[in-house]
Amino acid sequence: MHGCPIGLIGWGTVGGGVVEILQRDPQLLPERCGLDIQLKTIVTRRPERERAQSPGTAVVTDRLEILLADRSISTVIHLVGGTTVAKDICIACLDAGKHVVTANKALLAEHGDELFARAASRGVSIAFEAAVAGGIPIIAALRDGLVANRIDAIYAILNGTCNYILTRMEEEGRSYGDALLEAQRLGYAEEDPTLDVNGTDTAHKLAILARIAYHSRIPIHAIRCEGIQQITQADILSAKTMGARIKLLAVAKRGDGGLELRVAPTLVPLDHPLASVRRNYNGIHVLGSAAGPTLLVGQGAGALPTASAILADVVDVCTGRYQATASRFRFFSAAHDVALLPEDAELTGSYARFHVPDRAGVLASITQIFSQHGVSILSIHQGTPDAQGHATIEVVTHPLTSRSFFAAIHSIDGQQVTLTPTVTLRRL
Amino acid sequence: MHGCPIGLIGWGTVGGGVVEILQRDPQLLPERCGLDIQLKTIVTRRPERERAQSPGTAVVTDRLEILLADRSISTVIHLVGGTTVAKDICIACLDAGKHVVTANKALLAEHGDELFARAASRGVSIAFEAAVAGGIPIIAALRDGLVANRIDAIYAILNGTCNYILTRMEEEGRSYGDALLEAQRLGYAEEDPTLDVNGTDTAHKLAILARIAYHSRIPIHAIRCEGIQQITQADILSAKTMGARIKLLAVAKRGDGGLELRVAPTLVPLDHPLASVRRNYNGIHVLGSAAGPTLLVGQGAGALPTASAILADVVDVCTGRYQATASRFRFFSAAHDVALLPEDAELTGSYARFHVPDRAGVLASITQIFSQHGVSILSIHQGTPDAQGHATIEVVTHPLTSRSFFAAIHSIDGQQVTLTPTVTLRRL
Repeated sequence: MHGCPIGLIGWGTVGGGVVEILQRDPQLLPERCGLDIQLKTIVTRRPERERAQSPGTAVVTDRLEILLADRSISTVIHLVGGTTVAKDICIACLDAGKHVVTANKALLAEHGDELFARAASRGVSIAFEAAVAGGIPIIAALRDGLVANRIDAIYAILNGTCNYILTRMEEEGRSYGDALLEAQRLGYAEEDPTLDVNGTDTAHKLAILARIAYHSRIPIHAIRCEGIQQITQADILSAKTMGARIKLLAVAKRGDGGLELRVAPTLVPLDHPLASVRRNYNGIHVLGSAAGPTLLVGQGAGALPTASAILADVVDVCTGRYQATASRFRFFSAAHDVALLPEDAELTGSYARFHVPDRAGVLASITQIFSQHGVSILSIHQGTPDAQGHATIEVVTHPLTSRSFFAAIHSIDGQQVTLTPTVTLRRL
Repeated sequence: MHGCPIGLIGWGTVGGGVVEILQRDPQLLPERCGLDIQLKTIVTRRPERERAQSPGTAVVTDRLEILLADRSISTVIHLVGGTTVAKDICIACLDAGKHVVTANKALLAEHGDELFARAASRGVSIAFEAAVAGGIPIIAALRDGLVANRIDAIYAILNGTCNYILTRMEEEGRSYGDALLEAQRLGYAEEDPTLDVNGTDTAHKLAILARIAYHSRIPIHAIRCEGIQQITQADILSAKTMGARIKLLAVAKRGDGGLELRVAPTLVPLDHPLASVRRNYNGIHVLGSAAGPTLLVGQGAGALPTASAILADVVDVCTGRYQATASRFRFFSAAHDVALLPEDAELTGSYARFHVPDRAGVLASITQIFSQHGVSILSIHQGTPDAQGHATIEVVTHPLTSRSFFAAIHSIDGQQVTLTPTVTLRRL
């Protein structure tokens, strides 16, 4: 049996999950892999309140320096949110010669270059399986399982809050606001949900996945990002009409023109595997040059699923395997820059909903303008006119450049064929 | 850059895939992880025929001893089928101090105890990601990603041949025989498909997954195994009627009474994630105590997907990570025995199709006998009678012991309520 005293900084939801797994089933890891992982020191802002629930003999303190000075602790679980104090604490741990296991995606997406280099210079490593898609072992799958693949594309649902809201809007006909309130009541959305619903959290996770897949530096601002705040019941119903569901989709796709990176609400056809990833689940669809398509689905957040990933990393570090990974895999320290695809060169299927007067020639005008711009239509649907004699025409296109598509939309709206500005969405 | 000369034994479909990946994209692994994997020696039964396509400077020979004597080769890709010669070759490699990377599931399922012990005694290891579900990194996910989970259950579609046949029977209304012929024509089924369609191949893979999940010895005969040869269009249509699809399902489930292990054609409800795993795809649904449900779907066979898994293992061995795994994880060498659940204590949903005369009282008799045996009915469907006045009654039960279910069926058939022996299937 190999004893592994570890430290924990931040005793919130996920930290509580780590403590729970280790306390509830102390024999699991010793039985499975001969490791006796002991929480030796817990650093928290409110040590008095929490000392009562302290696991075993752990020291609970608000003084980081006690943890840093303890040479018997070589691995620290870092569960501090944000990118300021969290960064300082991460650097302090690395500088004290400790391996860091973290779930903080924002920290790595924004300061990964600096932190990975710092870790390398100190001879330690940063493990982050828990930072993307919680309990789903996607980091290891992408880095190790698919190591012999060029990654042609990643399509992923990475934010459980957004997926829950979109699912409830679809299943229950709720408004965005009602679905958000329900998600908050159930603990699937934070009190301030901004970073989830505006796509930032998804972009952070995509930056980490793309860094591994393309062993490249991924500047976070290189990811074009839209959220779900503008999605209405009309959009949800339109998707249904067109045989699809709306998902907040993260996309990384390599092509001749460069790497395409974006986060946007997207129509996912019902027969695509990601369409059935529902409620608060996450799903990642990876296209590898050798393995072909691989799909992983599971719980992307929550105390126990995230703690499951944290402890997988702790085992990886305590066995020495992770150090072999960090010292060898390029994306940690020697990542190169990657050419990014300009926005108007993105090749994607698109969806448009035109609000038009119900009279002869309107449909012909629209299809003619599309044709002039080289836009090839995959399917088209015209609804029954309402009492005012207004109708809806919905169009899904074959993949084409954003440039051509938006030029066509601009031209249609400019000719006053449409009554209100045309609504557009992407389509997988 | 770290040079890794490796050997390959068996240059068939998968061996060809390994050669293709390394030749087509020689910069991938050096770029990603600083490893220069060089095929130094290839052992094949027909070296003359294949020498022409030899990659780079590889020696192609039919003499295993050349490979064994080469001390610069510490890792061997073992792609020899069967369990006799394949076992001898595996042992010869281990005895020569070489790590073995293999895709041979039958070999490990039947002789794993002996081979893992042999490897441990020689200070080398056996890697086998490619042995289960081809390109899907399920071995690593179960062993490492979910290391901090007790595995409550595994439900898996592990044989692409069977899944292809069942999908085509459902989608195209084909007979079992026609669908098998089509699968053979497309290369999804072998000329002699026996070990695929009778469930043996699935049982081998389940034995390996269960060994890892429960760090236990899994005697292959402990797995109750039925194939798909008896599945008819009537069964396929029945499944549809009951809102389900038939899949050849591998199940490992832990419970108070012991571990349940079986392979059987099973009705999978349409809303279960495994229902949408179609054609030749594999899918594994794992229920972990911390991570909750995780689903992995991908290509379970074929040259490139399997070679992708083989090379992932080679990288794992060449970085030294795999040795850290093999020396520490219990299932390799110190697996214990596990209590197995007796067959009649299995707790499972069930399906029955009764062929009955269309007269008053028949339905009442059936439901009454079920009730007497404590069988709780989830749903029931009675079809329109045919010209002979014969009708079909279909029943799906809530989970109950096989003992109670089959006692009820036996009693119903014994009372001559039914015209032909009742058809039964399991239901997830």
